[in-house]
Amino acid sequence: MTKQNISLSVIKRLPKYYRYLESINDKGIIRVSSKELSEITGLTASQIRQDLNHFGCFGQQGYGYNVSELISELSKIIGVDKKYSMVLIGYGNIGHALYKYRSFRDLGYEFKNVFDKDPDLVSEKIDGEVEVKNIDDLEDYLKEEKIDIGIIATPKEVAQDICDKLCEGGVKGIWNFSPVDLKVKNGVVIESVHLDESLFTLTYFMNSPEDFIF
Amino acid sequence: MTKQNISLSVIKRLPKYYRYLESINDKGIIRVSSKELSEITGLTASQIRQDLNHFGCFGQQGYGYNVSELISELSKIIGVDKKYSMVLIGYGNIGHALYKYRSFRDLGYEFKNVFDKDPDLVSEKIDGEVEVKNIDDLEDYLKEEKIDIGIIATPKEVAQDICDKLCEGGVKGIWNFSPVDLKVKNGVVIESVHLDESLFTLTYFMNSPEDFIF
Repeated sequence: MTKQNISLSVIKRLPKYYRYLESINDKGIIRVSSKELSEITGLTASQIRQDLNHFGCFGQQGYGYNVSELISELSKIIGVDKKYSMVLIGYGNIGHALYKYRSFRDLGYEFKNVFDKDPDLVSEKIDGEVEVKNIDDLEDYLKEEKIDIGIIATPKEVAQDICDKLCEGGVKGIWNFSPVDLKVKNGVVIESVHLDESLFTLTYFMNSPEDFIF
Repeated sequence: MTKQNISLSVIKRLPKYYRYLESINDKGIIRVSSKELSEITGLTASQIRQDLNHFGCFGQQGYGYNVSELISELSKIIGVDKKYSMVLIGYGNIGHALYKYRSFRDLGYEFKNVFDKDPDLVSEKIDGEVEVKNIDDLEDYLKEEKIDIGIIATPKEVAQDICDKLCEGGVKGIWNFSPVDLKVKNGVVIESVHLDESLFTLTYFMNSPEDFIF
């Protein structure tokens, strides 16, 4: 598998391809051409072939791609063929929604623990699965447990402090929902979901629909 | 204000500038140079000046930008100087979290109503504010009420149908949290938050940290 000079925009499209392929796989479709993928995705067939070629996923002339094989290849490239342990920091509204969002778990992302600072929440048992732990115990906890992903769903004022503790505690990735840009260290990678920015982007296009690409 | 040939990446950075400026404004900072903005944002000073110049936001040589004036300009450009009425479709975990997320409201985004199909939720009074309405009443409701934004937080199977109803019902924008790509019509604009794609992007970089731009 060759993987050189891949742009961020190509990488960002991989989860999209994966999602499309999963949805057509669910419909029992066995093979798909780049032209058909183009119709679903809105990208050009040549763009799709080029994107997938980056990762050595070559379709066959006159056949296209075998859907389940391509899913299997993409899942290896993205890394969803492995299991991941996660901790969730902040069991407010967003944290609660993320914890309950079942589809992550079905894919092998497991919530190992939930932390919060609210004494009313600490020791609460969630769905008979995990007990909310005190945020003060996070550092000690990370010394004992191997955690892959830390999810930050705290108020912005404490988010950087939590981020530092997660980085020092050995997580490999941080999924941030707090409306701040966090600085990571120790080679930890970060991906943020900024709800306010997303709503503002929508607002901009509502006011300037001529700039919107349909 | 000139606004021509503005790329999507510039537009996507506007909400970020707005957020940064709000945070420094909260600290009582009155003026800021593009160099200082560069240190906070990680973008180059020349990039920032170029971005803001697109919209006629010119700093003054040797002074920089007046923070509150720039916030005021940006809020007009993005459109957050106006009020928006919203309906939320789907009062599950994500819908619940969005409804409770207060910062949108403080900015002038008002939840007018919430719709769901679950009979156990319908007629439930949320925070003493709105009563959850039956999804079957959405079309009639939109004939009576002027709604700017429809938020879709439903299972993916029904999301396109809801999207069609919202477009026909006269909303200007759709904020989609369902893990599908929806087709809009009647000039409606759409912005999606795909949680699964975001988690997959994080996963990719955790497995290929050499591709990650720190």
